[in-house]
Amino acid sequence: MKTIAPIKGMKEWVAFLRTKGLTLGLVPTMGALHQGHVSLIRRAREENDKVILGIFVNPIQFDKEKDLLSYPRDIEKDKELASREGVDIIFAPSVEEIYPKGFSTFVEEEDLTERLCGEHRPGHFRGVTTVVTKLLNIISPDRAYFGLKDLQQSHVIKKMVRDLNMNVEVVVLPTVRDKDGLALSSRNQHLSRTERQTALSIYKALIRARELFASGETNSCEILQEMHGILHKAGIFQIDYTSVVDPETLEELEEARPDAVVALACWVGNTRLIDNMGLSETTSLKERLPALSSLEREAHA
Amino acid sequence: MKTIAPIKGMKEWVAFLRTKGLTLGLVPTMGALHQGHVSLIRRAREENDKVILGIFVNPIQFDKEKDLLSYPRDIEKDKELASREGVDIIFAPSVEEIYPKGFSTFVEEEDLTERLCGEHRPGHFRGVTTVVTKLLNIISPDRAYFGLKDLQQSHVIKKMVRDLNMNVEVVVLPTVRDKDGLALSSRNQHLSRTERQTALSIYKALIRARELFASGETNSCEILQEMHGILHKAGIFQIDYTSVVDPETLEELEEARPDAVVALACWVGNTRLIDNMGLSETTSLKERLPALSSLEREAHA
Repeated sequence: MKTIAPIKGMKEWVAFLRTKGLTLGLVPTMGALHQGHVSLIRRAREENDKVILGIFVNPIQFDKEKDLLSYPRDIEKDKELASREGVDIIFAPSVEEIYPKGFSTFVEEEDLTERLCGEHRPGHFRGVTTVVTKLLNIISPDRAYFGLKDLQQSHVIKKMVRDLNMNVEVVVLPTVRDKDGLALSSRNQHLSRTERQTALSIYKALIRARELFASGETNSCEILQEMHGILHKAGIFQIDYTSVVDPETLEELEEARPDAVVALACWVGNTRLIDNMGLSETTSLKERLPALSSLEREAHA
Repeated sequence: MKTIAPIKGMKEWVAFLRTKGLTLGLVPTMGALHQGHVSLIRRAREENDKVILGIFVNPIQFDKEKDLLSYPRDIEKDKELASREGVDIIFAPSVEEIYPKGFSTFVEEEDLTERLCGEHRPGHFRGVTTVVTKLLNIISPDRAYFGLKDLQQSHVIKKMVRDLNMNVEVVVLPTVRDKDGLALSSRNQHLSRTERQTALSIYKALIRARELFASGETNSCEILQEMHGILHKAGIFQIDYTSVVDPETLEELEEARPDAVVALACWVGNTRLIDNMGLSETTSLKERLPALSSLEREAHA
């Protein structure tokens, strides 16, 4: 496994792999890898000849400097995991390499980003679309892999790729959850033991929304109120949003539908967490656990 | 010569040409071709195996609807000229093809676009960078060709390509002028015979700036005042800007330098014209005329 920092060096490798006619899969991450990332890497290995893992904590997608500074980083551990998972190249550029002095060009999706997280994190998605554009141009992958936990991000990227006619297939894979249901996120590292317990109410609230819908409740307002109740009871009061949305447009739905998704963002202590679930999603936690446990067994081996 | 309208069809042709290992040159235009475009096509033919001519009047780069509606269009004449010049493929998509319903992603350069034309045409350069990004993604050319008459546009595109790590060489070729010095532009078609006479003062003002600098004048203010005098005398009073700028950053220079460029935008009747010239540019009109005339002879043959 190679680790490359300069853009020029990365482009040269890509050109070399291309002359051999190999297909490339890109897994762009901010490092601090977890089993969610592993699921992306494994799918990328299945579908491509070579897998390139991007590791770059992208400063321009952070709306709060404190969040940027405290974002978990552990490149050595990431390298170990990547190597174990058969990644071919890690592309880990410096901030100065990606944003040299005088950098001034940005890519912005202006519709989907108005909603949900976009309202609460000004500039966040602009940072995401700009850095993803750069990575796609540097690596020219056949496929790029993203996690559905970042529901809005994956939609925004798909929209950008379509709007700007980019030559890449965007693959979005299901959220990977811990045994207790908490969606995996690098930010979970920030949670204390108590906060982690509190955070479980996010999963419970989503499951409750699904149950309510299954039992015939279609009034979004009623569903969201029950969710708020569960979060409040657990001690979560700083809720950026809870929303029942159209799975394509992410527009809020007053009337819940089978294809709708319920999404939320809230703060547990100083940590902002997001999660979402399809209202008719059939995979139960129980069904998911075996696969998860086996992933985890390998990771901790 | 092929003419292609659908993006999918264009991408298929590009993929086909790529499998044959051919290099591609893109000349993106808004049609109403003139000898300035011809110089781009000819250079593209010299440097690439295949030449693709883009013809698309890009609605989102027009800040005034009247200007968009009246923009000269003559696709049949353009096709004739393109065929005569050895263009391999014309890519002429519809507006609906380029901007389908719900289009919402834009590319924006935010530094160079603050100045000169950017101040007077809000959204113009955002429209340019967005459509050029799309064309570059659809066609993946090795080289793309632009004219220096659109000084700021060529700088903005070069900056975008560098910032976003796009895989294309941007080639910028000198302004082509008519025998009397008027910079060729599709918009010249809008000028009446009298207005065309008036418009010559733009060239005269630029030449005068060069003469002043050659004779030792380095105070930009003095140079620009003389230019204004020439324009006023000819009857041009609506002047968006005249400016002595750094050739790279396009920042205004109080003190003119040998590498500086003098640029201006003004209105002749209802037509907005732009032009620019290096203060030490050595090619005189006389020196340029033979080449021009031969171009014109061919065009009118």
